Amino acid sequence: MNNEINVTEKDLELEKMRHSAAHVMAEAVLSIFPDAKFGIGPAIENGFYYDFDLPRTLTPDDLSFITDKMNAVISMNLPFLHEEMTKEAACKLFSAQPYKLELIKDIEDEKVSIYRQGNFADLCRGPHVDSTGKIKAFKLVTVAGAYWRGDENNPMLQRIYGVAFNTQEELQQHLAQLEEAKKRDHRKLGKELEIFIFDDEIGQGLPLWLPNGAAMIEEIEKLAVETEFRHGYVRVRTPHVSKEDLFKHSGHLPYYADSMYPPMDLEGVRYYVKPMNCPMHHKIFSSKPRSYRDLPLRLAEYGTCYRYEKSGELFGLMRVRSMQMNDAHIYCSEKQFEQEFTDVIKLYLEYFKLFKITEYSMRLSTHDPAGLGKKYVNNAELWLKTEDMVRKAMEHNNIPYYEVANEAAFYGPKIDVQVKSVIGKEFTLATNQVDFAQSERFELEFTNESGQKERPLIIHRAPLSTHERLIGFLLEQYAGAFPVWLSPVQVVILPIADRHQEYAMKLESVFKSRNIRVESNYQQGTVNNKIRLAQAKKIPYMVIVGDKEVANNTVSVRLRDGEQKNDLLFADFLELITKAIEEKTGN
Amino acid sequence: MNNEINVTEKDLELEKMRHSAAHVMAEAVLSIFPDAKFGIGPAIENGFYYDFDLPRTLTPDDLSFITDKMNAVISMNLPFLHEEMTKEAACKLFSAQPYKLELIKDIEDEKVSIYRQGNFADLCRGPHVDSTGKIKAFKLVTVAGAYWRGDENNPMLQRIYGVAFNTQEELQQHLAQLEEAKKRDHRKLGKELEIFIFDDEIGQGLPLWLPNGAAMIEEIEKLAVETEFRHGYVRVRTPHVSKEDLFKHSGHLPYYADSMYPPMDLEGVRYYVKPMNCPMHHKIFSSKPRSYRDLPLRLAEYGTCYRYEKSGELFGLMRVRSMQMNDAHIYCSEKQFEQEFTDVIKLYLEYFKLFKITEYSMRLSTHDPAGLGKKYVNNAELWLKTEDMVRKAMEHNNIPYYEVANEAAFYGPKIDVQVKSVIGKEFTLATNQVDFAQSERFELEFTNESGQKERPLIIHRAPLSTHERLIGFLLEQYAGAFPVWLSPVQVVILPIADRHQEYAMKLESVFKSRNIRVESNYQQGTVNNKIRLAQAKKIPYMVIVGDKEVANNTVSVRLRDGEQKNDLLFADFLELITKAIEEKTGN
Repeated sequence: MNNEINVTEKDLELEKMRHSAAHVMAEAVLSIFPDAKFGIGPAIENGFYYDFDLPRTLTPDDLSFITDKMNAVISMNLPFLHEEMTKEAACKLFSAQPYKLELIKDIEDEKVSIYRQGNFADLCRGPHVDSTGKIKAFKLVTVAGAYWRGDENNPMLQRIYGVAFNTQEELQQHLAQLEEAKKRDHRKLGKELEIFIFDDEIGQGLPLWLPNGAAMIEEIEKLAVETEFRHGYVRVRTPHVSKEDLFKHSGHLPYYADSMYPPMDLEGVRYYVKPMNCPMHHKIFSSKPRSYRDLPLRLAEYGTCYRYEKSGELFGLMRVRSMQMNDAHIYCSEKQFEQEFTDVIKLYLEYFKLFKITEYSMRLSTHDPAGLGKKYVNNAELWLKTEDMVRKAMEHNNIPYYEVANEAAFYGPKIDVQVKSVIGKEFTLATNQVDFAQSERFELEFTNESGQKERPLIIHRAPLSTHERLIGFLLEQYAGAFPVWLSPVQVVILPIADRHQEYAMKLESVFKSRNIRVESNYQQGTVNNKIRLAQAKKIPYMVIVGDKEVANNTVSVRLRDGEQKNDLLFADFLELITKAIEEKTGN
Repeated sequence: MNNEINVTEKDLELEKMRHSAAHVMAEAVLSIFPDAKFGIGPAIENGFYYDFDLPRTLTPDDLSFITDKMNAVISMNLPFLHEEMTKEAACKLFSAQPYKLELIKDIEDEKVSIYRQGNFADLCRGPHVDSTGKIKAFKLVTVAGAYWRGDENNPMLQRIYGVAFNTQEELQQHLAQLEEAKKRDHRKLGKELEIFIFDDEIGQGLPLWLPNGAAMIEEIEKLAVETEFRHGYVRVRTPHVSKEDLFKHSGHLPYYADSMYPPMDLEGVRYYVKPMNCPMHHKIFSSKPRSYRDLPLRLAEYGTCYRYEKSGELFGLMRVRSMQMNDAHIYCSEKQFEQEFTDVIKLYLEYFKLFKITEYSMRLSTHDPAGLGKKYVNNAELWLKTEDMVRKAMEHNNIPYYEVANEAAFYGPKIDVQVKSVIGKEFTLATNQVDFAQSERFELEFTNESGQKERPLIIHRAPLSTHERLIGFLLEQYAGAFPVWLSPVQVVILPIADRHQEYAMKLESVFKSRNIRVESNYQQGTVNNKIRLAQAKKIPYMVIVGDKEVANNTVSVRLRDGEQKNDLLFADFLELITKAIEEKTGN
């Protein structure tokens, strides 16, 4: 949706064509449903849509029929004609179109703008291409429900989505990408690979991690724990429930209450499930007197938080109500800030390299002076100072970033890490925030080198995001074919005949003793079928054993991509896979 | 409180003496506070108490003054005289004693029983020793508040606790044990060793684990994860919040509602924080069709549950409101049951050996036919069958146990593992339960070898209890001096002078690279002071480095108990400690 920025002439021409395609689609729909009422029909990223109020629900056959009609209009190469008229005249023209009448009423100018092709007229500011023949390559892809003007109190219309490009080649390429996206959809893969489920009796947005998903979670936690140990973090654990006092103290109540689960009333006291871990970590910081020698104090916890998201906004693992965060809070002095902040950014880059995330950008969100005391903590000086500290940290380390004003957290500036998944969707994977406000609220302090009390700065960070969002992302990133260290099942053993089972079981127990997640398939059936099954489960190594392997203490290893290596000494293969897992390399 | 069972004559005599001491104490209190009103004064384990309504709060000086008065009465060797009188006469005798009058009113007999020594009379069923001189060895230990008749709507009285034994030697031994218990009290040690805290703004019974506590938790989880992997468990993760539908389905609501946190009302749906993990695991079992080939399916999760315990019943880490359980559910066929149940018991024994828990007993709790359909699932046949299966599993494996009727869970028989801590307190560390009812409720089924649908049996187990209870227990078990693998800080490095700091830092980074939790103390001060500090923190290895160590690449190692080993090659010490941690041996 970068249409507003960097709009080149070519982009503008493409957008005009897509918008024109929407008009042609409306004309086609009207020719099939003479009673159709029209909503709006804009150009969007990759294509266009139009909202219709129709006497019945559309079927896939309708889409193909509409496509034919559109092609007929396109082949006639009708010109798009612009016209201006009074509101009165427009109301007459659209007298059978209640949604258009509503739009006309809201227009502030005296005159309204109309575009026509053939006998079809639409209320429209334009611009459009010269004629319908300019629409070179389009496809109607789907129908979805959409409330008129996005308001759930209004009627539900039917929205037809189309994609349109300058050439058939570009269109085909985009459709192939859509197809790939569908295949990589983490909701689809999550089900097929038995990663997670939702259950109606438990609730929306509350995933249950199946053994395969839990195995991945445990690997990711191990990675975080080991990495954070190396970086000098210590771990803590805090409850998921707290009295409301804590969230009053932190300032989350009442401002954040809409995003929290409602309270529980116990013995006259209100308790909440926590929407974040920070206030509990602040409590641990203040549980004893701190000196400059204790700083930086880096408290880490894979804490599960609960937030209320509207049912309509929930989306697979990407938008959920329970989220286990790779959370940590770093308490440091001003002098230590740059080093700490930089280390965190480097941690992000270390993880990105591991997960082969190459398309990302760092976005610095700053405050807006107009929002001081409202959207932002009222301390102009500290805002400027901390924003500058962040800029310096980024620049001194040659880390590219861009700035967006008026997008900071209420307690300080932040770096959002925007990631693009292989299917082209961009989202915030994680954020790295400076906080100079919570220290004050919780009266956090340490004794500095000169014996004076000082407030620490706090860095909030979660480079591995939440388990939910990270695994959702990784499912799409790897299309489910995870590197071996992360694979729910790392090896499957396939004996060719019953007589090879004993050898297979011996190998199985050796793998297990190395903490390798191994499965075996001793069921009836051909090895080829078993290979297909293992490939569908995206198991990285299929170890096939028959007479020759038993005789020579070897294995034949087949990879997910079909490659096969025969007659490897078992001991060699064991070293190879152990090394690949330890070093997080390998396919 | 085993007074009711195995009461030998000697025990009875001791109990009489303790009860008599309570009367003597009451007489002493009355002589000091002529307006004292009396509650009750029974014998208890190890001693006695008496509740008084006094004009002011007692001080430690009062206790010593009361002791003197008691000794005077004892030295007079006054006889205890029994007497019966009408209720009317008793009311006259105790006219100034409102609590006694209340007690008299509640007596159903016509006559009431009185005991006198000297001028002091008390309402009492007896029996007592012959005379006050029989009280050989006692000590008043503490004063606590206690509501009259245990009801918080009644006045708060002052309860004086005393201990009493047959000989001074026994008394001194008991007092020494009390002293030791105080030192080992997990609440005291937990604070001193910075293991956990409670915070008023978060809530009672909701511990926050400080870095030292979290380090222990992570070690215990690692132990569980590795052990369970070896035993063929797979891991899952489930949310802490669920719709009430789940707990209606499981049958916990409304029966268990009193022990749950109250509901949250979201979009007209009631949600609860979970009081147990089982129903969520059942959901995972039923998330796909299961065959006999999938069984036994062992689903493990260190799940945090939330239960409501009355404020007055909370006790340190032993009785809390949030508890992270070493939970797992084993779904198996009847044929597999004995093997699975036995394996679980063996797992318990494996852990007990590791933690040097030698005093434990296995208690089989069975149903009572009278409770069928009320307290117990109404299926007499399955009760008898599963109880017998458990007995057989225990007997075939020569595991001693004893039986208690009418103590089973509502869904099946269970083995409770009773543990005695080194300070002599007995409690249930963990339970191992059979469940033949939830399978039915959740319609769990698998296809057996003959292609028929069958319900699995479920074993609920938690050999490592909850983190809260286990760490509370281990704090007392080890008096905070944990074996090295479990120690929050495993090594501290103490350079003798500034010039040894560089070498110290080199060692520190080597320890860290082996994932050893190491601290260093580079502050000003003598090494002896630093040793004392490290001993107070119960750090297993203090590595002292000076000129000689730097020159020879050696270390001098001091243990917590004062033992010291000089001039160890650093490489040798590193191997030694790595091995001790890996094999969970060493001090």
